[in-house]
Amino acid sequence: MAAAPVKVYGPPLSTAVSRVLACLIEKDVQYQLLPINLSKGEHKSPDYLKIQPFGQVPAFQDESITLFESRAICRYVCEKYANKGNSGLYSTNPLVKASIEQWLEAEGQSYNPPSSVLVFQLAFAPMMKIKQDERLIKQNEEKLGKVLDVYDKRLESSRFLAGDEFTLADLSHLPNTHYLVTAGGRREMFTSRKNVGRWWDEISMRDSWKKVSEMQKKR
Amino acid sequence: MAAAPVKVYGPPLSTAVSRVLACLIEKDVQYQLLPINLSKGEHKSPDYLKIQPFGQVPAFQDESITLFESRAICRYVCEKYANKGNSGLYSTNPLVKASIEQWLEAEGQSYNPPSSVLVFQLAFAPMMKIKQDERLIKQNEEKLGKVLDVYDKRLESSRFLAGDEFTLADLSHLPNTHYLVTAGGRREMFTSRKNVGRWWDEISMRDSWKKVSEMQKKR
Repeated sequence: MAAAPVKVYGPPLSTAVSRVLACLIEKDVQYQLLPINLSKGEHKSPDYLKIQPFGQVPAFQDESITLFESRAICRYVCEKYANKGNSGLYSTNPLVKASIEQWLEAEGQSYNPPSSVLVFQLAFAPMMKIKQDERLIKQNEEKLGKVLDVYDKRLESSRFLAGDEFTLADLSHLPNTHYLVTAGGRREMFTSRKNVGRWWDEISMRDSWKKVSEMQKKR
Repeated sequence: MAAAPVKVYGPPLSTAVSRVLACLIEKDVQYQLLPINLSKGEHKSPDYLKIQPFGQVPAFQDESITLFESRAICRYVCEKYANKGNSGLYSTNPLVKASIEQWLEAEGQSYNPPSSVLVFQLAFAPMMKIKQDERLIKQNEEKLGKVLDVYDKRLESSRFLAGDEFTLADLSHLPNTHYLVTAGGRREMFTSRKNVGRWWDEISMRDSWKKVSEMQKKR
């Protein structure tokens, strides 16, 4: 009997949900997507708060465990399903793993803060008819630009962030960057940096990400 | 022959440096602390940027590996020195580890952003004779309060964040919280929440943290 699919709660349009979906597809892990309607406030319902106490998406269930925080879910999926799908995503070699963790934290701590502000301001605010904050956009473009300068230097000598292979560290950048280069209209921030541009072209063409991006279009 | 001590670059006054120091002391790993004078801009020197391209502290070296990002360094230390010191800090049980990762990410993504703004505004700005931003303080007190409400509920049924044992998830909260309850004058935010108060009293009394906090006083 096949294992029951894992459950992911939340809309694929959410950057954090799409991070988990890309990871599950890379790892060839069957999943069931349970829609959570954010505009109806379903992420603040008492039942949902039992599994995601911060009232955010995604939440995740696998057998007896429930989890939140997209990067923690991705790590769990990679460790639990170590023998399935793309085994290079989260290496078991301690030195490679340390490099993955380093760049995954760089994403969470340095790349995500300015890029998620820009995703909201440039892609979501117009959709939600919210006035854009020009000062905030400029400030975060500058911050993100500095991060991308460091990435460009790193990617001059390394095909991917953590080394020669596509890993969770690269994958974790897909959701925000996708919005920035599409609806956000900031493709040039990436292509103007030679190595970042080459890296983005390669990671955004992964089958896993193409599937997630198709799911986002259907909503 | 004893293994060469690992190297930590940066001042113990830095929250990220002190996170790594607390972890090394919990794990009973010998280290050498190399001062980086931030006021002299040593973190932006070409040599330092080779090991920490973002120009931040800490940087870390162990044998052939150099690393940055405090939470990634802590994970590496726990995995590399699994058999030394406090082995419960980063469990090898997959379900416990997933819970540690979940709350470690909650710290990095939900607790750290408002608390690090408050640490700067309340503790460092006065020291550096920088004018405090009252609006920013109020905004981030509200954000942090909401996070602490979630923590208080979690800690009602769990002694520590990830379960029955003190782990990396708790440890990672020590640096910012220490500044908030001391120089920041915000002890009441923690003690007014019964379970958070009990948890803070317990984790801040760890020998490891007492040692780090003594090191901070000497600078």
